Parts: sequence; C-alpha cells; structure tokens
Amino acid sequence: MPKQNHFAVIMAGGAGTRFWPLSRKKHPKQFIDILNKGKTLLQLSHDRVLKAVPQENIFVVTNEAYRGLVTSQLPNLPLANILCEPIARNTAPCVAYAAFRIAMESPDAVMAVLPSDHLVDDEDAFARVLNKGFSFCTEMDVLLTLGIKPTRPDTGYGYIQFDEEVTVDGIYKVKTFTEKPNQELAEHFIKSGEFLWNSGMFIWKASVILKSFEAHLPEMHEGFEDEKSNFKTDAEGAAVQRIYEVSQAISIDYGIMEKADNVFVYPASFSWSDVGTWESVHIIAAKDKDNNAMLNGKAILRNVSDCVVYTPKDRFVALNGVSNLIIVEYDDILLIADKSREQEIKQLVNDVRLDYGEQWT
Amino acid sequence: MPKQNHFAVIMAGGAGTRFWPLSRKKHPKQFIDILNKGKTLLQLSHDRVLKAVPQENIFVVTNEAYRGLVTSQLPNLPLANILCEPIARNTAPCVAYAAFRIAMESPDAVMAVLPSDHLVDDEDAFARVLNKGFSFCTEMDVLLTLGIKPTRPDTGYGYIQFDEEVTVDGIYKVKTFTEKPNQELAEHFIKSGEFLWNSGMFIWKASVILKSFEAHLPEMHEGFEDEKSNFKTDAEGAAVQRIYEVSQAISIDYGIMEKADNVFVYPASFSWSDVGTWESVHIIAAKDKDNNAMLNGKAILRNVSDCVVYTPKDRFVALNGVSNLIIVEYDDILLIADKSREQEIKQLVNDVRLDYGEQWT
Repeated sequence: MPKQNHFAVIMAGGAGTRFWPLSRKKHPKQFIDILNKGKTLLQLSHDRVLKAVPQENIFVVTNEAYRGLVTSQLPNLPLANILCEPIARNTAPCVAYAAFRIAMESPDAVMAVLPSDHLVDDEDAFARVLNKGFSFCTEMDVLLTLGIKPTRPDTGYGYIQFDEEVTVDGIYKVKTFTEKPNQELAEHFIKSGEFLWNSGMFIWKASVILKSFEAHLPEMHEGFEDEKSNFKTDAEGAAVQRIYEVSQAISIDYGIMEKADNVFVYPASFSWSDVGTWESVHIIAAKDKDNNAMLNGKAILRNVSDCVVYTPKDRFVALNGVSNLIIVEYDDILLIADKSREQEIKQLVNDVRLDYGEQWT
Repeated sequence: MPKQNHFAVIMAGGAGTRFWPLSRKKHPKQFIDILNKGKTLLQLSHDRVLKAVPQENIFVVTNEAYRGLVTSQLPNLPLANILCEPIARNTAPCVAYAAFRIAMESPDAVMAVLPSDHLVDDEDAFARVLNKGFSFCTEMDVLLTLGIKPTRPDTGYGYIQFDEEVTVDGIYKVKTFTEKPNQELAEHFIKSGEFLWNSGMFIWKASVILKSFEAHLPEMHEGFEDEKSNFKTDAEGAAVQRIYEVSQAISIDYGIMEKADNVFVYPASFSWSDVGTWESVHIIAAKDKDNNAMLNGKAILRNVSDCVVYTPKDRFVALNGVSNLIIVEYDDILLIADKSREQEIKQLVNDVRLDYGEQWT
C-alpha cells in the first residue's frame, strides 16, 4: 500500500531532438509509444510509479506547451498535479518548483524525482527500489540517487563512483559523478566495479532538497520562496512566470548533486534504459535472427541485418540487401541513416532548421 | 499536319512488377508520373503521338481493369478508341486486335505500334521519325521497327543487328533480333556498330501486318477474322472475350518479327529509355552533384551518394551516410533496397504475395 507521504515528480518537459523525426518539438519522445508497447513512455513512467505512490501524490512537471498532451495521456492524474513551466530552464528549477509545491502538501513528504522518458522492464523491482529509497530517506537527511549496475561499457551514460566502505544497508556514499566517458575509460569503470550508471532518478525529503537549494543555489531558492504564497492560487501561473524569467538554467546534477556532501547511491538491479539513442532502442527491442528490430509496420526482409525500423502501423516495409540502418517514418518525415553515424542526426536536424525553418523540426 | 491515314496504337495493358511498389497491379507503371514531370508515362506517350497522328486515330489497348485509368488520364481520347483485353496474352493478340479494328477505319491505314511506358525526351525528333516511318511504310510493304542508336553497352535491352548493305534512304534491312546480351557481348555489339537497341516500336500498314499474322500466326488470325463482324457493335466485348480465351500468349517479336523476311529498322537518334528499372530512372533523372536522383519529396542529404528516391510530394526525406539505395514510398508501402540488387525486387514481390496474398502486390 503506497504511503501517504510518498510523492513522485515525473519530469516531462524535455523537447529532445535526438529521436527526430519521432521526437519533435510538437511531440517529444516522452509522449510517443516508442517501443510499440501500447503506452507512451510517459504513460509507462506514470503507471509504474503507481505501485509505490498514491495517484494523488504523483506530480508531472512539463512545459506549458505540453499540458494538453499530459492531460490526454494521463486522464487519471489530478489536473492540479500538472506543474507547467513557461520556459525550459533545465532540471534544477523543475525540481525546486516541485519540491516547494510538495512541501505545501505534506511537511514530511519524501519525494522521488523521475524522468518521463526512460524505460524500466521490471515494474515490481522498480517499486521495491522506490520503497526502499523512501524508507532510507525517511530515516536519513540525505540526497539519494538511483544507480544502475552497468551491463556493458556504455559511453552514452554518465557514471557514479561510490565508496564501498561507507554504506548503510546496501546503500553507498557517492564519491564522484562523472561525465560520459570514452570507450577506454568506460571499460575501466566497468572493470573496477566501483561505478554505476547515473539514472537521473532521485529520492529525498522535500525539506532536505529545499535546504540543499538554499545552500547551493540560494538565488533560485529565494526566487521560489518569495513567490510561494501565490502557489495553489489563481496567481500561480504569473508567479512561476516571474520566477522562470530570471532563473538560472542549470541541471540538478551540476547545481546540487555534484556539490552536496550528503549524497548516497542505491545500486538498483532492474533492467533500465534511458532510451536515449536508436542504438539503445535497438538493444531493448525485440529482434529477429538477423538482429533487426522492426517496430510497428508489417515487413518483408531479404538479406537485411542490424536495422532498427520504426514506421506507421499501416505501412508495409520491404527491405532488400541493406544493413545497419536506422529507418524512421513518422508524421510527414522519413529518416534513413547509417546507424554508426547516429550522433550526426542532431546536426542533421539543426541543418533542417537552417534550411527550412521550424516546419520540420 | 498529321495525315488522316496515320494511326497509332498505344499498348497500355502491362502490369509489370519491376517498379513495385510504385507500379502495382492496381496502378501499373504507365499510369504513374514516375519522373515527376506532371504527366504519367501514358499521358506523355499519348501527347507526343499527337504531333504525327490525329487524335481520332489514336487507339489505346489496355486491360479491362485499367479502362477507368485510361479514360481519366486521357480525357480527349474517343471512348471507342479504347480497346480492352479481357486477359493478358502478351503483345501479338494486342497488335492483331488493333490492326483488325484500324483496318475497318481505313483500308490504307498505316499504323504505329507504341509502348505506353517508355520515355522519349525530344518530342519533335520523335514526330519526325514517326512521319518518316509512315512515309516509308506507305511506299513499301514492310514491317518497320524503330531501333535506337545505343549510347552504352546496356544489358537490359534486346538488340537488332542490321545489314548496312541493304538500305533505302537510311533505313536498313534487319539481319537478326537478339535477346538481352551479357556484358561482354553487349560491348562487342556496341563496338561493331551494326547493332541498335530494340525499342519495341513498330510501323506498318494494317494490311501488311494482317498478312503477316495470316502467314506466321494463322490460328490467331483466324480467331479475329471469324469475329471481326462483331467489332464496332455491342457484341464486340463478347467477341473479344471468345478470341482471347483460346488465344496463344506470345509476343509480336517472337510471333512475327523474328520470322518475317520483310523487316526493316530505322535507326532513330532521339534520347529514349524503356524506363524499365530504377537504374534506368537513375540514368534519366536530374541528379545532384553526388549522383542522387530525388523525385518528389523535399529532402536533406548528408554524406549520401548514388541514391534514387521516390516519395510522396508531402514527405520530407532526411538521409545520412547511405549510398546506392533505391528508396520508394508509394501508397502504403516503403521499399528500401540496395541498387546493385535491383533484379531481386521481382522475387521480393513474389515473396510478398506468398506471405501476404495479393494485398500488397
């Protein structure tokens, strides 16, 4: 039974272009059923939290532009639990806003901060991890981050180094956060056994993270403090507008986690992906014997290998003699790209913007 | 001014699958604007004949299933000039049917037999060749075929060997018709200077081709002879049905041209293509500096070469790091194939039929 002081914040404001053309400004990745599971990533994120948090304690922070997408995809979410940002300011203001609002609901609130666009396969394992995290943070005034036991030397993730000697009940003190490593460093990280993937999932008391904001991002804290009397009133939108207009754009990792000295990490073992690249989709998705991941459309393949294909459900796809391609058709856009050059897609979208304006981005 | 005894027959009954998915059973190649010229291949074929043949003397032979496509694409064509075949029986019965019908219009008719799915760039040169052919066939009781001066050792065409010593006014007696040669033989053909591409375009008097049918395909001739009193009456459809049900399926080349001894060839020099393969479309089409032919859709290309891309006009295409691909989206089908394996597309379509039935063919 989810506890009444357990809260969750799902961050759904991103407008990433890495999954273009599936992810576009008007429908970012979290609002898409990227793996053909019958639910969008946001819906999956919301539904798996329900096992550890009461419905009325789940909050979604998103951009004002996506309010309609959130309400239509999460019809059971109380409308008052959708917190809308007027402009994107990275994750720190998003977390601050949610923490201030949740602290008003319950003075002893323990809150999980979760991305809306990641994938977790084992929902029960996820709920167990959340509950253990909630218990730990109820006892301790710490910032807890969920680390994932790495299964390969992935260079697309940040890593967390933990201190094996400072541990409470299988939860470890964090030594350092690292940026995405190169291949050699990633292999070294894996070999050492001291590193976990940084999942971007956090748990803490609302009161504890607010104190951390006061210590490490005092101006941001003051901005919210000055306006919080307007929250939960008709003046909330205007208040948030004023805060965001002058707010620093900074991530919670860089603004708080890397500076605080009370950070712990829980090595979670559920299967997880940030669904950050087509390569990662290829890893997660069901594949045929030639390592092709065919999402959605009906297809016939001859002499085809290592492709990932996402097409409309009514599209019949015929491939002959091709390999290692990303093939995506969505809306009015068709992308065909060599998978090993996936990093160039971001630049390609920039070029599309330069050549054609916002129409296709 | 086109002469009143000049007739043309456009053969538009084919249901080729080589251009699948652009060409499908329900809309074969001739009914498609394959080169984004604003006219389908049939419309182009019809319009260029108008320079040498009066509108009322142009006939189209097609399958009953495509009558609607012909009438909608050629609104100026008299409805009585659409001759419908109940079943496909290759080109010989098609030519016989048209010759019998045209002989009823004019006893001294000279008729050109033309494919509906080929491309000729210079319409004036084409009209000059037709007129010269009409004149030649008015004077002589011969079967004239139009040969094309080859510009490369293409292995996709049949060749015609002519006798340089038997010539009337630049038109030569034919020595042999050849099948599609291998690369070595094709190069030998080109070097010898004695070979032309077989364009599948013919000119003759209706009376002369009918005599040839009597001599070389006597049963077929008798079938039409027995029923011709029903032509141009309400009983024509039933009569044609009876003829075709028992008719041999054979090409005009194999049934008549290779057997007759009065065959001449006119070496035409206009630019011509049978638009028979994506490779041939790639040769004809406008290309960018990296040899990509982009037909229809808007596109952005990075590190892309030697591709031929046909997509809906409203599709935005983004390609990154790919080369030598055929990319076709039409109706509800997306084909992506290595260009060097184009010959396998036919087999692929057969496999689609086996796996999914007729739905996608």
